[in-house]
Amino acid sequence: MSTPPVERARSIATVCLSGSLEDKLTAASAAGFDGVEIFENDLIASAATPERIRAQCADLGLAIDLYQPFRDFEAVPRDVLRANLRRAEHKFDLMARLGADLALVCSSVSPEAVDDDDLAAEQLHDLAELAAGRGIRICYEALAWGRFVDTYERAWRIVRRADHPALGVCLDSFHILSRGGDPTTIRTIPAEKLFFLQLADAPRMNMDLLQWSRHHRLFPGQGEFDLAGFLGAVLAAGYAGPLSLEVFNDVFRQADPGPAAVDAMRSLLALEEAAVPAGPVVGGRSLPEPPELAGPAFVELGADAGAGERLGSTLAALGFRPAGRHRSKPVRLWEQGDARILVNTGPDRPEHRGGGALAAIGVHSADPRAATRRAEGLLAPVLPRSARPDEADLSSVAAPDGTALFFCRTGADRDASWLGDFDPEPGGTAGAGVTGIDHVAMTQPFDHFDEAILFYRSVLGLDPEPPVEFAAPFGLVRSRLVLDPGGTVRLALDSAVLRRGSWAPAVPNPQHVALSTDDVFATARAVRELGAPVVAIPDNYYDDLDARLELDPELAARLRECSVLYDRDARGEYLHFSVAVPGSRVFFEVVQRVGGYRGRGEHNTPVRMAAHRRRRLATGS
Amino acid sequence: MSTPPVERARSIATVCLSGSLEDKLTAASAAGFDGVEIFENDLIASAATPERIRAQCADLGLAIDLYQPFRDFEAVPRDVLRANLRRAEHKFDLMARLGADLALVCSSVSPEAVDDDDLAAEQLHDLAELAAGRGIRICYEALAWGRFVDTYERAWRIVRRADHPALGVCLDSFHILSRGGDPTTIRTIPAEKLFFLQLADAPRMNMDLLQWSRHHRLFPGQGEFDLAGFLGAVLAAGYAGPLSLEVFNDVFRQADPGPAAVDAMRSLLALEEAAVPAGPVVGGRSLPEPPELAGPAFVELGADAGAGERLGSTLAALGFRPAGRHRSKPVRLWEQGDARILVNTGPDRPEHRGGGALAAIGVHSADPRAATRRAEGLLAPVLPRSARPDEADLSSVAAPDGTALFFCRTGADRDASWLGDFDPEPGGTAGAGVTGIDHVAMTQPFDHFDEAILFYRSVLGLDPEPPVEFAAPFGLVRSRLVLDPGGTVRLALDSAVLRRGSWAPAVPNPQHVALSTDDVFATARAVRELGAPVVAIPDNYYDDLDARLELDPELAARLRECSVLYDRDARGEYLHFSVAVPGSRVFFEVVQRVGGYRGRGEHNTPVRMAAHRRRRLATGS
Repeated sequence: MSTPPVERARSIATVCLSGSLEDKLTAASAAGFDGVEIFENDLIASAATPERIRAQCADLGLAIDLYQPFRDFEAVPRDVLRANLRRAEHKFDLMARLGADLALVCSSVSPEAVDDDDLAAEQLHDLAELAAGRGIRICYEALAWGRFVDTYERAWRIVRRADHPALGVCLDSFHILSRGGDPTTIRTIPAEKLFFLQLADAPRMNMDLLQWSRHHRLFPGQGEFDLAGFLGAVLAAGYAGPLSLEVFNDVFRQADPGPAAVDAMRSLLALEEAAVPAGPVVGGRSLPEPPELAGPAFVELGADAGAGERLGSTLAALGFRPAGRHRSKPVRLWEQGDARILVNTGPDRPEHRGGGALAAIGVHSADPRAATRRAEGLLAPVLPRSARPDEADLSSVAAPDGTALFFCRTGADRDASWLGDFDPEPGGTAGAGVTGIDHVAMTQPFDHFDEAILFYRSVLGLDPEPPVEFAAPFGLVRSRLVLDPGGTVRLALDSAVLRRGSWAPAVPNPQHVALSTDDVFATARAVRELGAPVVAIPDNYYDDLDARLELDPELAARLRECSVLYDRDARGEYLHFSVAVPGSRVFFEVVQRVGGYRGRGEHNTPVRMAAHRRRRLATGS
Repeated sequence: MSTPPVERARSIATVCLSGSLEDKLTAASAAGFDGVEIFENDLIASAATPERIRAQCADLGLAIDLYQPFRDFEAVPRDVLRANLRRAEHKFDLMARLGADLALVCSSVSPEAVDDDDLAAEQLHDLAELAAGRGIRICYEALAWGRFVDTYERAWRIVRRADHPALGVCLDSFHILSRGGDPTTIRTIPAEKLFFLQLADAPRMNMDLLQWSRHHRLFPGQGEFDLAGFLGAVLAAGYAGPLSLEVFNDVFRQADPGPAAVDAMRSLLALEEAAVPAGPVVGGRSLPEPPELAGPAFVELGADAGAGERLGSTLAALGFRPAGRHRSKPVRLWEQGDARILVNTGPDRPEHRGGGALAAIGVHSADPRAATRRAEGLLAPVLPRSARPDEADLSSVAAPDGTALFFCRTGADRDASWLGDFDPEPGGTAGAGVTGIDHVAMTQPFDHFDEAILFYRSVLGLDPEPPVEFAAPFGLVRSRLVLDPGGTVRLALDSAVLRRGSWAPAVPNPQHVALSTDDVFATARAVRELGAPVVAIPDNYYDDLDARLELDPELAARLRECSVLYDRDARGEYLHFSVAVPGSRVFFEVVQRVGGYRGRGEHNTPVRMAAHRRRRLATGS
């Protein structure tokens, strides 16, 4: 017998978001949070009285789940205790005005504290007694870098010893997992003593715990911690309070709080799905399973008329044939093998009026309606439909960078699918050996990199590979591949490690469609004959390749001749070349995988980027 | 008898700079470097043949001092050695084409290497023999994270054991100092075995050595390593090769390489000055000593006519009196106590045409001509003079953010000084108790923060305080105070920790002039009566102050009444309030120091910034 799904309260600490306290509360409410943790500094800088903040929260439907942090309280000499209790009384006054009834006390880092758990327990008992008189409860949290108390096990021992009904523990996934703590023993803590739970993910980093925590926390699912296991352990222990996010992150601290709060909520829903068998419940509804994907259905490029022409010529030179015109929209379908590319010259989005950019990706999925419902449940904005009654009813959602994501039914016959909206065009060239779409690479806007990883991970059920970093000619680039379990849909997401300034490439956020072939050299020769502008790779690259890999001389010569880049790993080989589209943000790659090669030639990217830039400088495009 | 000053060769690794190899070489030459280390990846991505790069370097007057890095060579099984020697031969071919005769081999991180110094020595001997046959020498460097060889002492033991004239060591300050290595034993290495020296500074960080090295290195003088001591030890050991910079830094990797190369050269000159008694020699000339400063002479604000009016009204409301008009320029002098502020409504710089911004700082110095020669020697751009024959011949140099820096003679009488260029205006108000200029705070453009620290440190001989970081409402801010030994000139330099995007304050790089007073409350009341727009600080701040510091109730009440912010440290107290200038990038602070307080109320900055933003939103300015 399975327990019925429960809708849990979801909360967010105001410190996760940028702006004034008012900005933060508005964003949290709009994203559907039920409550907030008020971070003290946000309140101190606010001109709103505590009563006004209380009223604003009530208007926005937000509970004030926690007031935090109260620092450096326990295990101190008498005179310091007196001052600390006075300080606490002031904060309890404030909490009464705010209508908050739970305060967080984090373990001391003060040089005045002593290593004495009995004294800590005794003083926390006094504090809890003071709080209880005001209807306030205290949760005690072990900071990972606490001077003496730095594990939740020790914090719990002190709380148990203090033995006061108004005193419990606060668990924070970062403080526990960053130190390699074991969450399974959380079950030894009685449920009624688990007062609060803070959730944060992080990339695995070997650095000072405090700096790691203050700068690099991430929302669940964006980092490398096992948060599903952690949350599972906490829920198994009987915790029934809010699931609350506390994420200190340099990027989120300065990003628009609206999308950041949506990202945060999505992370919680995805985490609940991973941690709880019944999955999350939102507004009384549970979330459909991740879709079963069966590869890309199409890639749509947006362009103005002139750029559309250039994209068309490039596609023709790549061996694509014009296969259909949309019945009601200025969209043309290009086909080669299983690769389908739409060129949309409609004025849908202003950024496409220029030289051409990715507008949409369509993926084959077994149940498009369920996939869309899932995306909606995960707060992906559903895009307006503009199909005529006789056209396929395709629904799509917007990814964080604005790219539309379409779900197309796997194996649908032409009439029932989106292909039926195109009037077929007969004839066309014989092709250049392109068999399908290997992956789509999208440079993400700086503020949205981690959000994008989580978006595709949660909405499409893709798994992220570990991040890689490389030194591009104009700065470091971080890159991460996300792909479905079957490896049919592969998206490469890149972003600059630091937001770029004026000394930056002309095309700040390039995108490309990587087309697959079974014979990269045959395709290279074919497209060259068709006039495709293959990006020239310099001899220096091939000299180094030869020095490093001692390739078969015939292979080496063919790579050099065809400007094909080369990589290999323990499982196989990767051969790839690029074709530029003058003036466009988007370009094409043709790739051949040999054996079980997993990557996408990341190490060659700086060479390709430098070659691209030379081409643009030389052609003025 | 002191040795005559020597002009040492100065070199820079291409990896320090952004762009293509051609961009990097051009920038290095323009900044006056004598040579470069060619970083292999830069060459591999370049379309120029090695012969062409050699010719470009020759044209630019750059020696190719080093080709690097050659990785994972030594202490490997026979078959791996064979492949490694083949790889080396390819690179020696390349070096012959480049005209480079020194290659860097860094200690292995390969899983194929074994822990056997004899084997390493034997194989490095073989490599050196191969190199020597081609007229090439090898320098061996211990990476701080080398698998077995991670100290220079061990690298030297292997080199000594290998005993080949074409094999020596390369010392890298980062690899040594990041591990807390002791440079004094460098003197045990014979001078002729010290083949190369790489210099890099870094902030003190407790993190993975490789990540620290790859992302956070800085040019000497920008970080916290004792590079003067390190260089002194290397020179004492008899090293006579180039002083070469090798800095991997996320910001420099994406900044305009022209200014970055100048910054790099300045760092070397300042380091030589600190390490070598005779100081650096540039173009046959040595550098004048750092100037003796005696406080700020003036601050000049640039504005268009309308903003000039508003600045004037604000200054009047602050108790300044209009004290003079420049004889030939649209500049007005405002005076109060020792504080002198010029308002320049000339169209000198486009960015000042708006609401007003800092244009120049004048400092009193004992020998302005020597100070300017020093600034020139340190590559500060000397600004064109526009004085008429009867006017003071003031010379100025440009700081990295474009602010002009003037040197004014200390104690010069009015006729001989810049004040003589102003026609005095009689009369004016009695003042509001401002006694002088406490400090000037300048938010630096993101790419120029570390450069600015080094600029003021070297040109003015100021000492930087340790950096502080605080959470402003729109993101983290890093801040560092630089001041002269006498504490007469204090400059606060701030910058966002991450470059900001569209969700950012309306005034991205605010600046302010902090005026000193002996009685902040008297001044606050006086300026309020004069109509100054004092920035209102919310009650929440004062409630927290009371909770934290248990202030004397009378003091607490006066702070609250006057919107005065408060801080204290072990040495004293700091009381300060702000006055806005509508529509301006610049604003004013009035500050009172009590006792030996050293800071500038950094902890209050987020509260002040939030208050400023509310004011701007409320007044629409």
